[in-house]
Amino acid sequence: MGELGLIAAIEQVLGPPGARTVRGPGDDASVVRSRPLAVTSIDTVVDGVHFRRSTHSAADIGHKAMASAMSDLAAMGADPGEAYVSLALPADLPGDEALELAHAAVRVARTHGATVAGGDVVTAPTLVVSVTVVGWADSEEHLVGRDGACPGHLIGVTGTLGAAAAGLMILERGEAGYAPLLAAHRRPEPLPAVGRALAAAGVAAMIDISDGLATDAAHIARASGVGMFVQLDEIPVATGVADAAGLSGQEVALFAAAAGEDYQLLFCVEPQRWAAVAAACEAEGTTATRLGLVEEGAGLSLLATSGLPVSGVEGYEHG
Amino acid sequence: MGELGLIAAIEQVLGPPGARTVRGPGDDASVVRSRPLAVTSIDTVVDGVHFRRSTHSAADIGHKAMASAMSDLAAMGADPGEAYVSLALPADLPGDEALELAHAAVRVARTHGATVAGGDVVTAPTLVVSVTVVGWADSEEHLVGRDGACPGHLIGVTGTLGAAAAGLMILERGEAGYAPLLAAHRRPEPLPAVGRALAAAGVAAMIDISDGLATDAAHIARASGVGMFVQLDEIPVATGVADAAGLSGQEVALFAAAAGEDYQLLFCVEPQRWAAVAAACEAEGTTATRLGLVEEGAGLSLLATSGLPVSGVEGYEHG
Repeated sequence: MGELGLIAAIEQVLGPPGARTVRGPGDDASVVRSRPLAVTSIDTVVDGVHFRRSTHSAADIGHKAMASAMSDLAAMGADPGEAYVSLALPADLPGDEALELAHAAVRVARTHGATVAGGDVVTAPTLVVSVTVVGWADSEEHLVGRDGACPGHLIGVTGTLGAAAAGLMILERGEAGYAPLLAAHRRPEPLPAVGRALAAAGVAAMIDISDGLATDAAHIARASGVGMFVQLDEIPVATGVADAAGLSGQEVALFAAAAGEDYQLLFCVEPQRWAAVAAACEAEGTTATRLGLVEEGAGLSLLATSGLPVSGVEGYEHG
Repeated sequence: MGELGLIAAIEQVLGPPGARTVRGPGDDASVVRSRPLAVTSIDTVVDGVHFRRSTHSAADIGHKAMASAMSDLAAMGADPGEAYVSLALPADLPGDEALELAHAAVRVARTHGATVAGGDVVTAPTLVVSVTVVGWADSEEHLVGRDGACPGHLIGVTGTLGAAAAGLMILERGEAGYAPLLAAHRRPEPLPAVGRALAAAGVAAMIDISDGLATDAAHIARASGVGMFVQLDEIPVATGVADAAGLSGQEVALFAAAAGEDYQLLFCVEPQRWAAVAAACEAEGTTATRLGLVEEGAGLSLLATSGLPVSGVEGYEHG
């Protein structure tokens, strides 16, 4: 299948155009009807860096590229709109695998209410997938940045942490797999509906956990000019992660605090809104767990049960 | 310079946020105030495929990546708005070169009225730059697709052709260079202001010449369901291209017809609007040249002075 044949085949898997689409793929650019605010993010995944063709199927790669990009819309509380996908394909990638990759990316987009409205196919020595996602909002108050955390806010997180990192470790060690952990690594699910529900429930700051709770909490701390105090033993750890952490000799809560790519949402909210936040998460089929408090200060402090700060978590920026 | 240091340095070269920017780089996604129609395109350039680090400076690469993406907005007649740049950087690319690349991309965007509103930096074995551009329009009638050509329309082109391809050939052969040809290849200039002016003058179909006049004319023919009849000896050839074509033993007009990446605009327009088109081009400091006629039929026909069809142009899809 040549490049033009591949593009034609990909256009077949895109499905019907979105309700906003005026011009879809096939022209110099796509045209969509907008809403008042455009929320846009670009994310790139690279073979050997973010995945490995030896351990990830083409569909895994397409899924992951789109999930990672859509997760940024979730973190803003934006309504998913369109995605634009650029595929840089090595010559040894069979056309049907490229098509599976595209198909998986389209499936993730559609699952979360977005349309793949355009793209690009080029050749490259290494497989690289860039995805730009565009979400929409009607007003600034409907969106949530990283910079709204204030002293006195509660820190919360959706779902459970550590599964994706545990899956990656199992994969890299060639251990017998605990299937849900492998799936959490290969097919992470972004949470745009949860993000919108949290924004509607009034969270003041939000980020998706792509680099790990510790690193991403530090991002909120820096953007908001506050200190984030997280109780280590409150971190909700996914099933099976304790065993995986044990393989690496790490304490499970520290493992989960450093674990990236779960795409759960970390947020800060006024205490009186916690009940609304918990209800919003329950309505979306997930949980909200309180992790700690925003206080005056800077950076992230992880606190042991004793109340003393813990060090030794990899990857986060110290305050 | 680490990845975070590089991102901070890049944010420094972005300059002030655009008038539409609500949230710039530094959050999970950027937020901009929209206009009624969003016009979006993603383009990727890859080392060894679209440029070579051995013959292109980092600034050349950044320039080319942004120019190629912005040219798609020109072809639609959209107002440039924002650009989102993803840099996949190999470990052997020095930080200051990555910064020069970013700087050049920002300069091209700003020159044409766009703001770099977000981006992404990842590591990769090969240098890959993906640029998503977003343009804006207030109504569908202000935009021009590939599908509006009708029998009886004149076919026209802006500026001159062949310089970028001649520059590439000189570079690849290591010939003594004719500097403007090399510059045309390394630093092609997109034409969004010309594209808007042509749209306002009422052109019915438009495309930017990225793959060569012959190939891109065939794209209009297919999208519009018409035949494109182009007089070979009407093609406006850039200065110096005849000599370069001679090096390859090609007839100069055929060379120019197959030459890509000039980013000139090819368009179709009702004959009674030609004077307005010519005036619009003159006002933008360029020329409009009549190449031929749209007729019933399919595909592109290149006609010699004799009126007989010519074959042997590489790369275009036959009708």
